[in-house]
Amino acid sequence: MEIILAKPIGYCYGVERAMNITYETLKSEKNNIYTLGPIIHNPQVVKKLKDNGIKIIENLENDYVGTLIIRAHGIDPKKLERARKMGLKVIDATCPFVKKNQKRATQLVKEGYFLVVIGEKEHPEILGILANANGPFMVIENKSDYKKLPDVKRVGVITQTTQSMENFISVVSYLLEKYKEIKIFNTICDETIERQKSARNIANKVDLMLVVGGKNSANTKRLAEIGKSINENTYHIETSEEIIKKWLKGVKKVGISGGASTPKWLIDEAIKKIKKITSH
Amino acid sequence: MEIILAKPIGYCYGVERAMNITYETLKSEKNNIYTLGPIIHNPQVVKKLKDNGIKIIENLENDYVGTLIIRAHGIDPKKLERARKMGLKVIDATCPFVKKNQKRATQLVKEGYFLVVIGEKEHPEILGILANANGPFMVIENKSDYKKLPDVKRVGVITQTTQSMENFISVVSYLLEKYKEIKIFNTICDETIERQKSARNIANKVDLMLVVGGKNSANTKRLAEIGKSINENTYHIETSEEIIKKWLKGVKKVGISGGASTPKWLIDEAIKKIKKITSH
Repeated sequence: MEIILAKPIGYCYGVERAMNITYETLKSEKNNIYTLGPIIHNPQVVKKLKDNGIKIIENLENDYVGTLIIRAHGIDPKKLERARKMGLKVIDATCPFVKKNQKRATQLVKEGYFLVVIGEKEHPEILGILANANGPFMVIENKSDYKKLPDVKRVGVITQTTQSMENFISVVSYLLEKYKEIKIFNTICDETIERQKSARNIANKVDLMLVVGGKNSANTKRLAEIGKSINENTYHIETSEEIIKKWLKGVKKVGISGGASTPKWLIDEAIKKIKKITSH
Repeated sequence: MEIILAKPIGYCYGVERAMNITYETLKSEKNNIYTLGPIIHNPQVVKKLKDNGIKIIENLENDYVGTLIIRAHGIDPKKLERARKMGLKVIDATCPFVKKNQKRATQLVKEGYFLVVIGEKEHPEILGILANANGPFMVIENKSDYKKLPDVKRVGVITQTTQSMENFISVVSYLLEKYKEIKIFNTICDETIERQKSARNIANKVDLMLVVGGKNSANTKRLAEIGKSINENTYHIETSEEIIKKWLKGVKKVGISGGASTPKWLIDEAIKKIKKITSH
């Protein structure tokens, strides 16, 4: 039994940074520590943080006292203002690449482009970007959105940092036929591209492909989609407990890929479980 | 025998305009009338113009006296200056869409983009655009050019007015993976797109497809390529004389498409020839 690990594996730069900020805050702050929504999209990690005292709030409608950590996905500037007015100490753990994405979107709106964002309509990164850009926009999630595209002269395009390159190219190809002027920022982050390449590469080589990460994690879902499109023996799991004995029957090579918000220990647990099953 | 004609057929707007300007000039001018290179890419039409007294010159190295008509494909501004200094009366028959393309290229260079032009390296439209833009550039003719693309941050893209949409999309898809910022002007002219759509549509329906136009005409060659990719029974001809009896054997439907610089009378002659062959 051979296990092939994707590269990179474990937290991406932005998630690692957000987690470090959170643990530093836990050490230094005596007051309540809040995050607005889960700090990253991994239920197992978020549960650990909760056990350590971090409180996840869904909105800022009540008055909170203490420290608010801005999640890796960023925040609506109006909400940030509200938090500051409320007297909350704000610590920003927004991924620097997401922040750059917000700036690009804002720039396109200022330059007079109709903003087209390729990504998931309800994803916090997208909601944060749109709130920052504050101009006419449309989010393209899939082909069914094409018909809603407006008749404008100039569109400016950015993409969720965790989009797949295929989807990005496919949407832009459509836009090229519809619009005469298009300004595009490819804001898919490099680590996303690397992880997708690696997943594609490994899925081609193995008998079984496991993609480990939050079921609510956009980039993990993308990796699973990519795996599935190449190797139908691909499963998206959150924890090692989901690994079933029969998946490994007759399997010589297992590939393991993980999302940007999947900690290394969840990967290690998956490896352990595979070894345990196959050693019997 | 059914003959299906593509739409539009006959001269495109820019060629029609250039031809009108030329005939008006022939009527009003008593002096020598020159064009720098053929005014349009159709040898049969150019021959007629020569018979009417138009002189085609290859460069401005000698001193000419009279009137210079700028061809539909545009001109290098330095050559234009030289012609004016020489004392030539200049009449501009540059296609307005080509002129717009020159402006777009110039704009991209001014905005600091590395200019990527999708088109044929030696085509007069491209040479004119590059001379006007006067900045760092690369012309992409096919995939073999990709490896020569430089490592720059921002690229600005325009395309020859007569490019195929497929090629345009295919090149941009490559650029999307290489560059983080891309500003694109889709400068394929609407008539080109219409002709390509129509050729594609007709090639699917007929037993024989004829594409009439100059063998030196970029857009006619594109139409023939599109036809051939769908219906292998596609032939690119300049005149009706090239039509061979055996092409029509067992043929029930013939499709005829023509380039932007193909006059209607060459199409009519092709129809006449087909009817003559099949009536026997």
